[in-house]
Amino acid sequence: MKKSKAVQGFLFSGIASGIKKNGKKDLGLIYSKVPAKIAAVFTRNRFAAAPVLWGREVARAGFCRAILVNSGNANACTGERGVRDAKEMAALAARALGLKPKQVLVSSTGVIGEPLRISAIREGVPKGVEHLSPFGAHTFADAIMTTDIVRKVVYESIPLGKTPVRLLGVAKGAGMIMPNMATMLAYLVTDAAISLPWMRAIFRKGIDLSFNAITIDGDTSTNDTAVLLANGQAHNRILTSGSRDARKFEQALYSVMRELARMIVKDAEGGTKIVKVCVQGAPSISAAREVAYRISNSLLVKTALYGEDLNWGRIVAAAGATGVPLDPNKVDIKISGVPVLKNGRPLGFAKEKVAARRLRRHEIDLVMDLKMGRSNAEVLTSDLTEEYIRINSAYRS
Amino acid sequence: MKKSKAVQGFLFSGIASGIKKNGKKDLGLIYSKVPAKIAAVFTRNRFAAAPVLWGREVARAGFCRAILVNSGNANACTGERGVRDAKEMAALAARALGLKPKQVLVSSTGVIGEPLRISAIREGVPKGVEHLSPFGAHTFADAIMTTDIVRKVVYESIPLGKTPVRLLGVAKGAGMIMPNMATMLAYLVTDAAISLPWMRAIFRKGIDLSFNAITIDGDTSTNDTAVLLANGQAHNRILTSGSRDARKFEQALYSVMRELARMIVKDAEGGTKIVKVCVQGAPSISAAREVAYRISNSLLVKTALYGEDLNWGRIVAAAGATGVPLDPNKVDIKISGVPVLKNGRPLGFAKEKVAARRLRRHEIDLVMDLKMGRSNAEVLTSDLTEEYIRINSAYRS
Repeated sequence: MKKSKAVQGFLFSGIASGIKKNGKKDLGLIYSKVPAKIAAVFTRNRFAAAPVLWGREVARAGFCRAILVNSGNANACTGERGVRDAKEMAALAARALGLKPKQVLVSSTGVIGEPLRISAIREGVPKGVEHLSPFGAHTFADAIMTTDIVRKVVYESIPLGKTPVRLLGVAKGAGMIMPNMATMLAYLVTDAAISLPWMRAIFRKGIDLSFNAITIDGDTSTNDTAVLLANGQAHNRILTSGSRDARKFEQALYSVMRELARMIVKDAEGGTKIVKVCVQGAPSISAAREVAYRISNSLLVKTALYGEDLNWGRIVAAAGATGVPLDPNKVDIKISGVPVLKNGRPLGFAKEKVAARRLRRHEIDLVMDLKMGRSNAEVLTSDLTEEYIRINSAYRS
Repeated sequence: MKKSKAVQGFLFSGIASGIKKNGKKDLGLIYSKVPAKIAAVFTRNRFAAAPVLWGREVARAGFCRAILVNSGNANACTGERGVRDAKEMAALAARALGLKPKQVLVSSTGVIGEPLRISAIREGVPKGVEHLSPFGAHTFADAIMTTDIVRKVVYESIPLGKTPVRLLGVAKGAGMIMPNMATMLAYLVTDAAISLPWMRAIFRKGIDLSFNAITIDGDTSTNDTAVLLANGQAHNRILTSGSRDARKFEQALYSVMRELARMIVKDAEGGTKIVKVCVQGAPSISAAREVAYRISNSLLVKTALYGEDLNWGRIVAAAGATGVPLDPNKVDIKISGVPVLKNGRPLGFAKEKVAARRLRRHEIDLVMDLKMGRSNAEVLTSDLTEEYIRINSAYRS
């Protein structure tokens, strides 16, 4: 990472503490020199892991100084002991950094149901503190990876008049989204000064536009966490709803979040394609999302995409199986710009041939217009391959 | 099939009409010598295929004399032409058998979105009529198969006092359940005399206990059809709610339907395991079904089962991702009789080792007790393998 890519007042590190048996980095730390405002979103899974329970409390307080993340163990389904371990992680980082535990958010990702080796973290934290650097975001990103192949870091500098503010995001995830595997974690930091309620509102909206608009395998992790920290060290005029600067920042935030989400789908376990599923003309946004997700999660659609097989019948059947009362005689489908279905009827072999060629591309657009209303939704997904099965059937054994 | 396995007054045939390019059987016919009462259930997919639209009308009338089924083409998403073709199928069978078209139910299964080669059916129907035989159920079963490997026929003779009645079921399906592929079709015939409203009620209930309690890939076909015909040729006292004979018949019907459903899951595309997922102690049946289906359809659960990997964290995470407000600190899990989770906490390595060994078996029982209420649900499913991906990514191309 270039020296220019620091975010004022934030330091990062990533080290190997020994939780991962292969000696890879497994402990990441983010530190803000001054208290940062925090907006956070956590998994809705009822089996939320111990660090998520702790994280919710930290986020409620509105301020945070540090984030400690381990990979290799999810600290989920670990009962009372897990809760104690999550608190101890916060306490360890707090002690080493001279903070209060409640100022430290913690996350874990990896195997579920096994107690955390807290001794490894006890030894690792001081080492993590030692390695803190304004240019350490990449090593932090490495330390939070599990089955990820590609490191996910996005940086943007946003010029607000004479005061540039910086935004840096790091994510992990390669399956959507599962314990043992592929929990989605995302941490964004900015040196912008922002009003807390507005920051929470735009972060929530950003989540819906990014991490809540992707799917790889339709599963929801016990550990999903996304956090935005803002420490105000750019000393800009405080951003809040309505100003032109605020709009600029908001758009930059969405763009960074979408890029991180896109990187997760691109890194999908075993995936060979990245597929944007757009459902248009739905009677409501929730209906549009329901249809888009049903198509995106259909095994038969995903395997057809993998086979580069223009099997629009599977798309249609997936959409028809939702609760949305769509009219089969109205639906249009376009594949990467080529219409293949109009008013529910195929447009013939010539069109299909062109569309089938488009399926050979790495990126595919799939647009379904229900022609019922004015609501749209977009979901980003991957195809489903033998490699996914291999990765997920052999993970623990 | 032994001569003794006929059902009074029903004839069957299966022939090759040329719709399947490989020359295999693709046209099946069932004929009842006298009008048979009919109970039928069809797909709820909004893109219901043309033969389903026709079938609904036939079923409404309450009586049926013949069923004509082609495989190799689903006649779905084929617009007006598809509707005409489905009607012509009924008319062709009616003409050859001396019936009215409205007495003939038709089904199609196979590729979606391609017009049916009705000329092949025109030539095939007289041949199908010629081959009709009381012992032809097996050739009928062969003619309706697509990706099925195993023929699915179940026969039962039910002694009701001195008058035995016979019940014969034929099904197809190997993915649950999709166009182009693996539509679920089931036809049951009996020579019992039954009251029509009661027959409809028990058939509906039987569907919930059998075909509506299985999943292979979570998809719903445009062509799913299940039919029960009863022609009264056993001349038993008419069966209706309340009598002991009726209860006997009802139980036999459920057992035949469940066996057919089980055969479908056993024949799952690429599947190597058959897995019974039981959710107990749910606050309602719908909650129990939601959790059971979520577990059964989770790719990560299915791939773990394939890998014989005792990854109960995936089971827990799938259950936790439903809308059911379960309490993580109450849930118990047993794998083929071995408890691995009690009150949300793992029971340790020794138990897990025993349970992991059970996973090597071909048939696996997975019981999750939510301890919230008194409702249970059972879903039968398969594992997910590279072979499933291979079959479904290469089907058309």
